Amino acid sequence: PEHADDVRRAAQWAKKKLDKIGFPVVELISGEGHPLVYGEWIGLEGQPTLLIYGHYDVQPVDPLTEWQSEPFSPRIDGDSLYARGASDDKGQVMIVLSALESLVRGGEGLPLNIKILLEGEEEAGGAFVEKYVCQNSERLRADAALICDTHMISRTQPSIINGLRGILYTEIWVGGAKSDLHSGSYGGVAPNPLHALCLLISRLKGEDGRIAVDGIYDSPVKVTVEERKSWELFRMDVEKRLLAEMGVPELVGEKEYSAAERLGIRPTLEVHGIKGGFTGYGAKTVIPAEAVAKVSLRLPATMTPADVFAAFENAVKAHMPAGYRVEVKNLHGGRGISVSSDSVFIQAAVSAIEKTYGKKPVFAREGGSIPIAALFDSILKIPVVLLGFGLPDDGVHGPNEKFSLSQFFKGIETVADYLQRLRHPAR
Amino acid sequence: PEHADDVRRAAQWAKKKLDKIGFPVVELISGEGHPLVYGEWIGLEGQPTLLIYGHYDVQPVDPLTEWQSEPFSPRIDGDSLYARGASDDKGQVMIVLSALESLVRGGEGLPLNIKILLEGEEEAGGAFVEKYVCQNSERLRADAALICDTHMISRTQPSIINGLRGILYTEIWVGGAKSDLHSGSYGGVAPNPLHALCLLISRLKGEDGRIAVDGIYDSPVKVTVEERKSWELFRMDVEKRLLAEMGVPELVGEKEYSAAERLGIRPTLEVHGIKGGFTGYGAKTVIPAEAVAKVSLRLPATMTPADVFAAFENAVKAHMPAGYRVEVKNLHGGRGISVSSDSVFIQAAVSAIEKTYGKKPVFAREGGSIPIAALFDSILKIPVVLLGFGLPDDGVHGPNEKFSLSQFFKGIETVADYLQRLRHPAR
Repeated sequence: PEHADDVRRAAQWAKKKLDKIGFPVVELISGEGHPLVYGEWIGLEGQPTLLIYGHYDVQPVDPLTEWQSEPFSPRIDGDSLYARGASDDKGQVMIVLSALESLVRGGEGLPLNIKILLEGEEEAGGAFVEKYVCQNSERLRADAALICDTHMISRTQPSIINGLRGILYTEIWVGGAKSDLHSGSYGGVAPNPLHALCLLISRLKGEDGRIAVDGIYDSPVKVTVEERKSWELFRMDVEKRLLAEMGVPELVGEKEYSAAERLGIRPTLEVHGIKGGFTGYGAKTVIPAEAVAKVSLRLPATMTPADVFAAFENAVKAHMPAGYRVEVKNLHGGRGISVSSDSVFIQAAVSAIEKTYGKKPVFAREGGSIPIAALFDSILKIPVVLLGFGLPDDGVHGPNEKFSLSQFFKGIETVADYLQRLRHPAR
Repeated sequence: PEHADDVRRAAQWAKKKLDKIGFPVVELISGEGHPLVYGEWIGLEGQPTLLIYGHYDVQPVDPLTEWQSEPFSPRIDGDSLYARGASDDKGQVMIVLSALESLVRGGEGLPLNIKILLEGEEEAGGAFVEKYVCQNSERLRADAALICDTHMISRTQPSIINGLRGILYTEIWVGGAKSDLHSGSYGGVAPNPLHALCLLISRLKGEDGRIAVDGIYDSPVKVTVEERKSWELFRMDVEKRLLAEMGVPELVGEKEYSAAERLGIRPTLEVHGIKGGFTGYGAKTVIPAEAVAKVSLRLPATMTPADVFAAFENAVKAHMPAGYRVEVKNLHGGRGISVSSDSVFIQAAVSAIEKTYGKKPVFAREGGSIPIAALFDSILKIPVVLLGFGLPDDGVHGPNEKFSLSQFFKGIETVADYLQRLRHPAR
């Protein structure tokens, strides 16, 4: 909120840019938070409509002292442009705007109907855009959505994202005695909610990564033979990259599945924090009266967080040791998405990337959720194409965020080509 | 430290009181912290020497707002005297001083040789007294030690403590990836130190209370048949009291042992805190790079914390899931004590209590450790008699601490009688 004026100036800049490109309809839509920028260039009969999404807001720059140059004064060094938002997501919004501009300036005009929605609260929860999409699904109606806000798996291997896992985020509260106890006086007979949480969590997920929640493995995401082949082909590369990124000698979890499958479509369970008792300096012998754990599950796109929550709550109650009270809260849920690699909107992206990069892209499902993608999938019911040009080492959200200039220019070429390929979709 | 002057005044008061009773030798012994008060009345040939310990310092009074009267202005209501230190331990020091004074004033003089050591740092670690005892074991030589700083099991059932468990307090550090990770991008392949701690702790102690540390059950404390009978006799009472105090419907732990045995001589393992990841408001999807647990074990008096630490460290390493780094720190250790109920010094206390209360006391081993008792046991190598007159509901360390006046007066009678009974010990 303390940068509301700066954020608004970014919105106004984007609006002017759309005006300048020639969009007949350009609006600054104000809500409770930062405004949306919406542009519409439609009316091409018989052509499909593409909804393009991006966001013009960025993460805070702290810690400022770790930046090697001013975060809002772009610095170019070799192939990299350093600035906050360079990769996430101003740079990628510029790819889209430049592609649109080049098609218009090239004299051919836009090859299909375009609706473009730029958000200013992506890094702050995206409450306004969610409300807007839900209330304006008719206005936003399109045949597919394009989101340029992700990264490729490496500089040498172009990739396209065709799936995201969903998420269920819960909090488990465990109660023992009515007050904190001294382990000298009560240790041996007292309930210890921290110990109960350890027992519970170890029962919910074992060392082998298997999750003890009914039904969690019953509706796996379907993947094509081609995608599975590509996972096997890049298995060693992916695992090597993960080991290096994490700085560990071995992967932990379901060893019988490839890393790509474990990250892309397998459900997972993680404990994010455990609160209770004493964690300060020294040796306090408290048995806490209560303890809380934050536990989330990543879900195959086939499952709804609400259904999984019910099963999870049952699992917690079934696996709790005796002698404790337990409550499970559903803090947050988001559906995953899975786009068939056979979709024409995906196949056009594959062809556009192959042309620009001279190499066929691989499909890379992302383990994280992208709420806006899930929203387009569930509310607008259209395929979502996640065509991102960032690289894994861009350092988004951190100091010295950068964007690769060669990715930037290849991105413009790819998006312009992609839009042209959609002109007469082979449907 | 901010009350150093007040604490010193308490020491000076105690010194004057010993002078007034007639102790030939009374010293205020200054060290790095608060002073010791030492009195000596020896020279009775052929009589045993008793070393009496107490402490004149108290816990802080916070939260002051919860006190119903000034903590340092004693208030009497019915049988209770409310004040900080009323029970722990000023009131019980007064029992000893009053018993000594009554014997002297009664004209008979002290029945045996007395050395009395009053500490001013019991609530702050007791570093000075530990050093003093270690360096002055010759001066403090005695046949037994008497400590009046504990409580009886109930108002209607007098008890005497004949054993304390030892303690080993550790910290377990678990390291995973080189930095915190996002569960979307890495969940499914990443080490999660919090999950590893849950697995580890659940393996170190199961729901049945059994501890997986080699040798932990190999040298149990020996108890007399009489003591075991008394445990069985009071089993229901003790369990009922524990359930009420904890406000729970069932005890947790080794159900095949009585509560008295589980609290008094069985080893236990407790987790006191787990630190790592995110425990604030909301739903942060972090997989932490590291996590720490505070874990302690209560030990039978037969075991040394150092030996158990070695076994514990081995157990941690043996039970850690694969893919993690782990370190175990020994934060603190203290030996337990076990005094045979056959000891003449214990039997005299039993008789004195029986005379005053009209009821035979039961033996009640305490689950907590009392460092000074362990020190007298290990350095001076004398039996330690823990003859306390507090009650479980005295609220020591909390607001509105109280002491029962009837316990106070019975205490004086009992201690005076006890000292007389030691005059010609049946050795």
